[in-house]
Amino acid sequence: MTESPMTARTVASAGASAGTVGEVLSGHLTAQAGAFLRALPQAVGEAGSRPGERSAAAAGAGAAGTAELLRCVRRIGGALHTFAAAFDCGWAEETRTELRWLLDLLAQEPAYLRRAVRLLAALDSLSETDPAGPGMLAGHAGAPKARALLERQLTLARTRAHTMLLQELRSSRLHALADRMTLLASDVPLLAGAAGQPAEELMPQAAAALTALTAGAHQLPLLRAATPYGGEGLHRLGASQPALPSARAAERPARAAAGDADAVVAADDAPWHRVRILAKRARYALEVCGAPSEELDALDRTLDRHQEAADAAVTVATAARTPRITPATAYVLGVVHADQRLEVEAARYAFGRQWPNLPHHGWHEWATA
Amino acid sequence: MTESPMTARTVASAGASAGTVGEVLSGHLTAQAGAFLRALPQAVGEAGSRPGERSAAAAGAGAAGTAELLRCVRRIGGALHTFAAAFDCGWAEETRTELRWLLDLLAQEPAYLRRAVRLLAALDSLSETDPAGPGMLAGHAGAPKARALLERQLTLARTRAHTMLLQELRSSRLHALADRMTLLASDVPLLAGAAGQPAEELMPQAAAALTALTAGAHQLPLLRAATPYGGEGLHRLGASQPALPSARAAERPARAAAGDADAVVAADDAPWHRVRILAKRARYALEVCGAPSEELDALDRTLDRHQEAADAAVTVATAARTPRITPATAYVLGVVHADQRLEVEAARYAFGRQWPNLPHHGWHEWATA
Repeated sequence: MTESPMTARTVASAGASAGTVGEVLSGHLTAQAGAFLRALPQAVGEAGSRPGERSAAAAGAGAAGTAELLRCVRRIGGALHTFAAAFDCGWAEETRTELRWLLDLLAQEPAYLRRAVRLLAALDSLSETDPAGPGMLAGHAGAPKARALLERQLTLARTRAHTMLLQELRSSRLHALADRMTLLASDVPLLAGAAGQPAEELMPQAAAALTALTAGAHQLPLLRAATPYGGEGLHRLGASQPALPSARAAERPARAAAGDADAVVAADDAPWHRVRILAKRARYALEVCGAPSEELDALDRTLDRHQEAADAAVTVATAARTPRITPATAYVLGVVHADQRLEVEAARYAFGRQWPNLPHHGWHEWATA
Repeated sequence: MTESPMTARTVASAGASAGTVGEVLSGHLTAQAGAFLRALPQAVGEAGSRPGERSAAAAGAGAAGTAELLRCVRRIGGALHTFAAAFDCGWAEETRTELRWLLDLLAQEPAYLRRAVRLLAALDSLSETDPAGPGMLAGHAGAPKARALLERQLTLARTRAHTMLLQELRSSRLHALADRMTLLASDVPLLAGAAGQPAEELMPQAAAALTALTAGAHQLPLLRAATPYGGEGLHRLGASQPALPSARAAERPARAAAGDADAVVAADDAPWHRVRILAKRARYALEVCGAPSEELDALDRTLDRHQEAADAAVTVATAARTPRITPATAYVLGVVHADQRLEVEAARYAFGRQWPNLPHHGWHEWATA
């Protein structure tokens, strides 16, 4: 919590207003592109240094370069999206496409690693026998088998992601993206008309990112999420959502007719995942304006947790469809699956509590400016 | 919520103080024993009228006599426990033993019925495909098999309970208990010394029942339960409990060494089940004093829900150990098991919220009287 609520005026006086649009965006993008170029060889080295290693520890140790590269990729892409008006439209679009490609490529291996850590920790906690805090599956015969199965499948997925990463790190596509970043680090290609405007002109665009986040959040069943134990993540998925546009309502019977639980759950999670992207964009936009928000950072972490629990639940459901597993293994996977959907529900509850406290309301005046 | 908090003084002026201990206890027990005697033939008739029927509907329909009999048995037993000082010790003890026997006998069949309703509803909700609110197992292949398995096992258990009930309803033990109730309905065997005292003498005994409830509740991890999604029902069972007496601490390693998840979970639930009994006793004691508490009734219902979810979870865990079930069936049972433990956690959360609002504090002055 900040001591006094952040308003657009205080932001304007503290941050972005101290120059022109060109100065603010150049300063931000030059710094991020420079960090990108420094992190790139480190990330390549990290990926190359663990060719045959499959242990979680090896993949996790010394991945600081990859993490930093991901950080820069997200911020540059976010700025190019939110402040698109200041750039050549075609160039910004192309650059964002290439950044998204690198993001997808880089993010996979750490995501599988985090998912393995999350799921194995959940399984260990559920089957814990320590009298100081045993789990509901304490000493269950299926737990070691389920653990081995999850570990094997996630290691395999991570190895595949790693192999693909190694291939692409030598590709001409990456070299071309690095060239783009070299250009950005020295000379940000701003539109002449936009660059000279006062930095306050960035405000309506940052406000638009917040407005998009607000609109996305209002599509969520927030009231329901704010009531704990509503069964939101397990039961009655998609219920109590706001009235849907007719196009989406028409999709639903088809979805249910397929009888595919994964599709049903994915449709329930989708609006939350969209809000996660909107929250990140809003977060990076505020950083550009020199007004980072701790509350928004916390909200983003909650939505990351939501995404990771939802992805982990899908992994467990997939593992449970492995042929020839024992009923005991399947049973334990069922418990872990429900536990991860409970984590999804818990993250939604946390979001429902955090959202009303977000001090973004002062920004709305900029949206109409 | 009551408009103004209930205090012992207002209770004393409103209810029990309007006579002697003998008048209040006789009035209460005569009424309850009379209701017992009216409900008994109806309950016997209900049990006898469904000899071969196994459907849930048949067992549920027209069980009003059994429900009324259970109501009276609980209230008479509670009064004999809480106000034991007014009765011949041996007679009250014997009567309570016989009432407990009938309670266990009568309660089983409806409990299995409620458990079947609860579990099948949970399973149906989890595997619901209706687009208005599908579940995380929507259309899962294991759901119909898991449903059939649970229904079969619970019907079998209910049929066994019914057979035992039919046998015992013809036993001399029941006839002897009915004779005791006939005596109670006409002439309550009060100790001469106690009967003539002013009714206010009942207050310290009712207060003692509330004090026992408070002491029991203070053994519960209430702070933890009041934080939603603490993983209380699934993970870290028995953690963050208050310091245990050394005798109980010594039990724990043995429990964990057995590696039996059911035992671990049962040990975690036990203090909550004890508090449920204490809440019922306190509730019935307040009724005797003419001061029923809606808040205490609500608390009792929450603890009933806790007990029923915990029992249902055990049933699912047992069903999952059935030999030769398919992995898909076992998987669905794992999800349902976790879902019921989540219900346990939700009930604890509800208790943690209700407990501080219980307007029983005015009663403490009677405990020291």
